[in-house]
Amino acid sequence: MRVTVSVAIAGASGYAGGEIARLVLAHPELELGALTAHSNAGESVGAHQPHLAAHPAVAGRRFAPTTAEELAGHDVVVLALPHGASGAVAAELERSSPGCLVVDVGADHRLVDPQAWRDYYGSEHAGTWTYGMPELLHAGETTAARQRAELAGTRRIAVPGCNVTAVTLALQPGIAAGLIEVDDVVAVLAVGYSGAGKAPKTHLLAAEAHGSLVPYGVGGTHRHVPEILQNFGVTGASGTRLSFTPVLVPTSRGILATVTARVKEGVTEADLRAAWDVYERESFVHVLPAGQWPTSAATVGANTVLVQLAHDVRAGRVVVTSALDNLVKGTAGAAVQSLNLALGLPETAGLPITGVAP
Amino acid sequence: MRVTVSVAIAGASGYAGGEIARLVLAHPELELGALTAHSNAGESVGAHQPHLAAHPAVAGRRFAPTTAEELAGHDVVVLALPHGASGAVAAELERSSPGCLVVDVGADHRLVDPQAWRDYYGSEHAGTWTYGMPELLHAGETTAARQRAELAGTRRIAVPGCNVTAVTLALQPGIAAGLIEVDDVVAVLAVGYSGAGKAPKTHLLAAEAHGSLVPYGVGGTHRHVPEILQNFGVTGASGTRLSFTPVLVPTSRGILATVTARVKEGVTEADLRAAWDVYERESFVHVLPAGQWPTSAATVGANTVLVQLAHDVRAGRVVVTSALDNLVKGTAGAAVQSLNLALGLPETAGLPITGVAP
Amino acid sequence: MRVTVSVAIAGASGYAGGEIARLVLAHPELELGALTAHSNAGESVGAHQPHLAAHPAVAGRRFAPTTAEELAGHDVVVLALPHGASGAVAAELERSSPGCLVVDVGADHRLVDPQAWRDYYGSEHAGTWTYGMPELLHAGETTAARQRAELAGTRRIAVPGCNVTAVTLALQPGIAAGLIEVDDVVAVLAVGYSGAGKAPKTHLLAAEAHGSLVPYGVGGTHRHVPEILQNFGVTGASGTRLSFTPVLVPTSRGILATVTARVKEGVTEADLRAAWDVYERESFVHVLPAGQWPTSAATVGANTVLVQLAHDVRAGRVVVTSALDNLVKGTAGAAVQSLNLALGLPETAGLPITGVAP
Amino acid sequence: MRVTVSVAIAGASGYAGGEIARLVLAHPELELGALTAHSNAGESVGAHQPHLAAHPAVAGRRFAPTTAEELAGHDVVVLALPHGASGAVAAELERSSPGCLVVDVGADHRLVDPQAWRDYYGSEHAGTWTYGMPELLHAGETTAARQRAELAGTRRIAVPGCNVTAVTLALQPGIAAGLIEVDDVVAVLAVGYSGAGKAPKTHLLAAEAHGSLVPYGVGGTHRHVPEILQNFGVTGASGTRLSFTPVLVPTSRGILATVTARVKEGVTEADLRAAWDVYERESFVHVLPAGQWPTSAATVGANTVLVQLAHDVRAGRVVVTSALDNLVKGTAGAAVQSLNLALGLPETAGLPITGVAP
Repeated sequence: MRVTVSVAIAGASGYAGGEIARLVLAHPELELGALTAHSNAGESVGAHQPHLAAHPAVAGRRFAPTTAEELAGHDVVVLALPHGASGAVAAELERSSPGCLVVDVGADHRLVDPQAWRDYYGSEHAGTWTYGMPELLHAGETTAARQRAELAGTRRIAVPGCNVTAVTLALQPGIAAGLIEVDDVVAVLAVGYSGAGKAPKTHLLAAEAHGSLVPYGVGGTHRHVPEILQNFGVTGASGTRLSFTPVLVPTSRGILATVTARVKEGVTEADLRAAWDVYERESFVHVLPAGQWPTSAATVGANTVLVQLAHDVRAGRVVVTSALDNLVKGTAGAAVQSLNLALGLPETAGLPITGVAP
Repeated sequence: MRVTVSVAIAGASGYAGGEIARLVLAHPELELGALTAHSNAGESVGAHQPHLAAHPAVAGRRFAPTTAEELAGHDVVVLALPHGASGAVAAELERSSPGCLVVDVGADHRLVDPQAWRDYYGSEHAGTWTYGMPELLHAGETTAARQRAELAGTRRIAVPGCNVTAVTLALQPGIAAGLIEVDDVVAVLAVGYSGAGKAPKTHLLAAEAHGSLVPYGVGGTHRHVPEILQNFGVTGASGTRLSFTPVLVPTSRGILATVTARVKEGVTEADLRAAWDVYERESFVHVLPAGQWPTSAATVGANTVLVQLAHDVRAGRVVVTSALDNLVKGTAGAAVQSLNLALGLPETAGLPITGVAP
Repeated sequence: MRVTVSVAIAGASGYAGGEIARLVLAHPELELGALTAHSNAGESVGAHQPHLAAHPAVAGRRFAPTTAEELAGHDVVVLALPHGASGAVAAELERSSPGCLVVDVGADHRLVDPQAWRDYYGSEHAGTWTYGMPELLHAGETTAARQRAELAGTRRIAVPGCNVTAVTLALQPGIAAGLIEVDDVVAVLAVGYSGAGKAPKTHLLAAEAHGSLVPYGVGGTHRHVPEILQNFGVTGASGTRLSFTPVLVPTSRGILATVTARVKEGVTEADLRAAWDVYERESFVHVLPAGQWPTSAATVGANTVLVQLAHDVRAGRVVVTSALDNLVKGTAGAAVQSLNLALGLPETAGLPITGVAP
Repeated sequence: MRVTVSVAIAGASGYAGGEIARLVLAHPELELGALTAHSNAGESVGAHQPHLAAHPAVAGRRFAPTTAEELAGHDVVVLALPHGASGAVAAELERSSPGCLVVDVGADHRLVDPQAWRDYYGSEHAGTWTYGMPELLHAGETTAARQRAELAGTRRIAVPGCNVTAVTLALQPGIAAGLIEVDDVVAVLAVGYSGAGKAPKTHLLAAEAHGSLVPYGVGGTHRHVPEILQNFGVTGASGTRLSFTPVLVPTSRGILATVTARVKEGVTEADLRAAWDVYERESFVHVLPAGQWPTSAATVGANTVLVQLAHDVRAGRVVVTSALDNLVKGTAGAAVQSLNLALGLPETAGLPITGVAP
C-alpha cells in the first residue's frame, strides 16, 4: 500500500510557490493539495504559473484564498509568503491542524536571536523553527548529522535564505576545520532576478536588467547577514565579521558566491582541500575536481551546490566560489529536502540533481 | 525482476549528447552506458558537461572514442553527431550489434526524398529511418496513432529537427482538418543559441549575442524547410509553399515559432479551435486556454510544446504560436519519447513535463 | 552668433523621455530645458535617469510637474506621454506658446483616419499631425522628398511607432516600385523590452523575460497595424492585408523585423535589389551588401536602420529583414531628425549613426 | 584653419579596434586612417564590424595587413593587438614614423617592473610606456595633475586594463587620503563577455553564457593583479595585498566592481565621502549622490565611471562599487582621452558621457 503525503502551498502564485509546485508534482511520495494566494485568489493557476501548463488539472484550477480553512487537512503546508505573514497562518494551523508539518520558505522563523531580527527586519520576532539546512555543520562535527537529527521528526521548518545557503556552504568547512580566520570574511554574490520576487517594481523590469549589473543592499544592510553569522556560530565561529554585497546580474535564476577569508598561519592548500572533503558524503553539495569552477547554469533546476576553492598565498586568503539555483537549493529544493527528512522519507526523494544546461 | 536498458551516447560532449545524458540519468528504466566523443575523446566528462557534476561517477569519467567497439553491447545507441557522420556508425552497428536500437538525433535519416537531401545538404543521402515525431498526424487521422505504430518495434529512429517540430506541431491540425491553405505558409522563429551547437564560432559568441537579434538562413535556404514540407505532406497537404525565417535571440534554450497560413473561406475561429483539439489526448502538446500565449520559458527543461492560435479575420490568416525547448522536445526529449515507444515502455517514462521557469 | 534651441521634455522620467534627453545633450544646436513628469514630479532626475549621471547639472535637478507653465517658453516641446494625454497639453501650448514646435512621440496624432483610431484605441481621435518619418515614400516618388517638405516648417510632428518604422522602411521600396503584392503581407518582429515602457508590470519583470520568448498582440490586434497600412497607402498600395506579430525577446533595445510579401510574376532578385537602392541617398537607412544581414546590436544607440532582402523563389516571396533601435530611430532619434527638418537644421545634426556594439 | 589628426588602427577587426573606430568617427578632430588586421586582412570591414554599416566608406573597405608600411604616415597609431605583439610593431614605427603617437590598448607596456611582467605573463618585458589613466592620483596629490602632465607630450601611451581601471578608480581616494588599510583589499568584479575578446572559444559561446555566472582567474592568478598593485603604489600605498576575482555574467559590455578595504580606526563615513570628493573636478568619474548606486547600463557607450561607497561599521570596511563600460573607459575611451592629452586637444573631445540605457 502506498500512502501519499498531501502538500498545500500558501502563496502559490509567486516564484517560490511555483517552484515548490514543480517539485511536488515530480515527487514520488507527495501530492499537490490546495494552492492558495492572497491578491491573486480566484485567478487561474496556469495564467500565473505557465510552467505548469502541461498539468491541465493543476493549471486549470483557480487559486483559493490563503485561509486556515483552505490549508487545513493536509499533511504538509508550505508557506511561501512575504515576511511577516507566516506567523499568523502558522498559529492558526497549530490549532486547526496540530499534526501538520509546516515549512516556511520565508524569513520569519530563521533567526534565533530576537534582537538580530529586530535590527534587520524592524518588527517583532515570530519565533525560531528548526533550520532547514541539512548540511549545516555543528561545532565539532565532521559530518552533518546533528542538523539532520533536528529535522527528523520536527513539525516546523524554517528554510534558509538563498544567499545564506550559498555563503554558508562555501565557507563552513574551513570554519569547522579551524583553518581560517572569521574576523574578516568578505562575500560578494552575483545573483539573478527571481530572488527579488514577483511583485512588479521598476528596478526589476527586464528593460532595466538586460545588459546591466546592479549592486544593492551594500554596506552590511542586507537581511541575510545575521543569518550567515548565526550559521557560522553554529559551526563554531565566534566574532565573525562579514562584508556582504549582492550584485544583480541579468539572469533569472542563479547565485554565484565568491567568499573569501584569511587563512591561518601555516595552513596549506592541501589542508584546505582536505577540510572541504567533508562534503564527500553529501548528495547535493559537490566540490569540483581541481581546475573546474562552478557555474550557476550547471545547477539550474537542480538541488545541487557546486563548490571550488583556491588558496591565494599572496593575498593570504582562501577564495571559495559556490553556485546554486536560488529557487531550488536556495528555496524550494531545500524545503523538499528538509520535509523529506521530517517525514522520514529518503532525503533525496523527488529532487533533481542534474542542471538544465546549457 | 527489473531489466534496465543500457544507453550509449555517441557525440556525448556536445549539447544534444549532454541533454540526452541528463534525461537518461533521470529515467527509471534506462542506464547510462558508454559516452563517446570525437575530438574530445580522452577528456573529462565533467569538464565538458558541468551540469552532470552531481553524478561524480559519470562526471569523473573520460570520453571514450566514437568507435563501433565502444558503442557495441548496448540496448540503445543514440547518435548525436554532426550531419553526415551517423551513416557510417550505423552501418557498423548493423553488423556488430544487430538487435540494437539506434536513434539518430542528427539530420541524416530524416528525409524520404534523396533529391531533397541533395538539394539542401549537398551530399549523398544516407537513407530514411522511422521518423521520431509520435504526434505527427497522417492524412485522414484524427489522432496520431499511425506514427506511433511505426515507432513501436522499429530499430532505427530519426529524431526531427527542432524548428521542424515547432512548425509542424503548430500547423498540422489545420491541415488535417482541411481548414487552411498551404500554398502560402509563413513561419518566423525566434530561436536560442544552443540550437547552433557547441563548436566555437565568432558569430555565436556571447559578446555578439547579448543584446542582439540576428536572422539567418533567410530566403528559403534553411535545411529544415524540406523536412517541414515532408511532414505537411504526410498530414495530407500537397503543393505547400513555405517562407521560413529563423532569428537568433539572446537566450540559450527555446524556440518561439509564429506560423501563419491563409484560412479557407467560411472557416470560423470556433472551427479552428475545434481542429486544434486534436491535441487533447497528447501528453506533451498543449493548446493553452484562450487568452494565454505560449512562452518558451514555460517549456525549459521539459518535453512540452505549448500552442495557441488566433484567427486574424482582417488578414485572412490563422496565426499559430508554439513554444518548446529545442534541446528537449526539439532533440533529446523526442529521442527518449520515441525510444520509449520503440522499446514498449510507457511513452512518457522519464520525461519531465514541467518547465523550469521563471 | 549662435542661437541655441531650447527643448523641453514632458514625460521625462520614462524611457522615451530619457533617450530624448540623451540626444539633446549631445546635439550641437539644442539645449535641454524643462524636464517634467507626472507621478514622478519632484523626484530626482538622476535617480530615474541614471544614464545622465555624468551631467550633474541635469541629474541633480528634480522633475517639474507636467503643466503648460513649466513647458512654456521653449522653442520645442517634446511630448513623451501615455497615449491619450498629449492632446490636452498640445491644446494648452497652442494658446500659451503659439510658435512653439511640438513633437509627440506618443500615438495620439499619427493616424489620419479617426475611425481607425477608434477601432484600435477605443477613444476619440485627437487629430493628425505631420508624420515624422522623413524617409516615407509617397506614391510616385523615387526619393523621399515630399515627406521632408511636409516636415520643413511644420509646428506639429507625430513621431511614428517603433515597429511601424521597422516594417514600413523594410517593405516600402517594393511597393513604390510596384514589384510586390500587398494583399498578403506578413510581419513578425523580435522586439526588446524597453518598447513596453517603464511602468512596472509582472510580465515585464526581468525574472520573467530572461530566457523566455513571448508573443503578444497576436492576431491583428496590435495598435501599430493601422499605422503601417496607412503608410503603405501613402506609398501607393491599396487593399493591403497584413498579418503582424511581435515577439518579446530578452534584450532591452532592438527590433528585428522579418517582413515578407508575395513577389509579382516575373520579378527577379535583381529587380528587387534595384528597387531597394532607393535608400542609397539616405543617411539613416542602409541596405547591406549581399551576404550581410542586419543585427539589432549594430544599431544600438544609433539612428540607423539596417536592411537586407532575399527573394525566396520557391515560396514566391521577398523576405526583408530590418533592424533598428526602438528608442532611437524608433522614437527619440526620429523625433530629433524630424525636428531638425522642421527647424531648418541639417537633418543629421546631433544624431549618432554608429551602433554601440558588441 | 583646421588640421585633422589621422588615426590608424592595428587590430581593427577585434572588439577594441571596432570601438576605437566608433569613437574616432565621432571625434571632431580625428580622422580614420588605415584599418589593419592579421588573420582577417583582406576581408570586409563591414562584415567584421557591422556597427560601422552606416559609414559605407568605412564598412566597404577591406582590412589591410598589419605591417609597418600600412601604419606609416599617420599622426596616431592605436595598437589593439594580442599581448606580446605590440612591441615589434612599435619598434618598426619608431624607425618609420618617429614623430607618431603610438597608443597600445594591450597589456605589453603597462607594467613598470619587469619581474611582475614575467611572473604574470611568462614572457620577456617589452618596456614601460606612459600610463593612460589621467585620473590616477600620485602620492601626495589632491587632484590628478601629475599623470596628466606625464601624458601631455608623450609619444607612447599604455592604456590600462579594464578591470584595473574599475578597481583603481574605486579605491584610490581612500589610499590618497590615508583612510584605509591596503593590506587586505578584496575586489570581486561582475564582468561582461566583450572583455574576453573575439577569438571563438567554447566557454565564451552565447549558449554557455546565457543564464550562467562563471568565475575565472580565481586565487590571485589574473594578470590585472600586478597592475592594480602598481597603481596603488603610485598613489602611495605600500604592502598592498589584494584578493581579486572576476565573474563573467551574461552581458556583452560592463564591469561592476565591488572593492572593499578595512577602514582605519576612527575614520567616519563623512571622512570617507570627503576623500572621494577628489573626483568633483573630473569629467569622467562621478561619485553618485547618497542613495544611488552605480549600474553598468548607465555607462554603456560612454567614457563614464560611476562610483558609490558605504561604510560598513560592523565589518570595519568601506565597500566601494564602481561601474564602467569595459570597451569605452575600460579601453577605447581611455585611449582617446589619453591621446587627446598627448596631442594637446581638450581632454573631453569626442568622448560621449551619457550612457545608452536602458
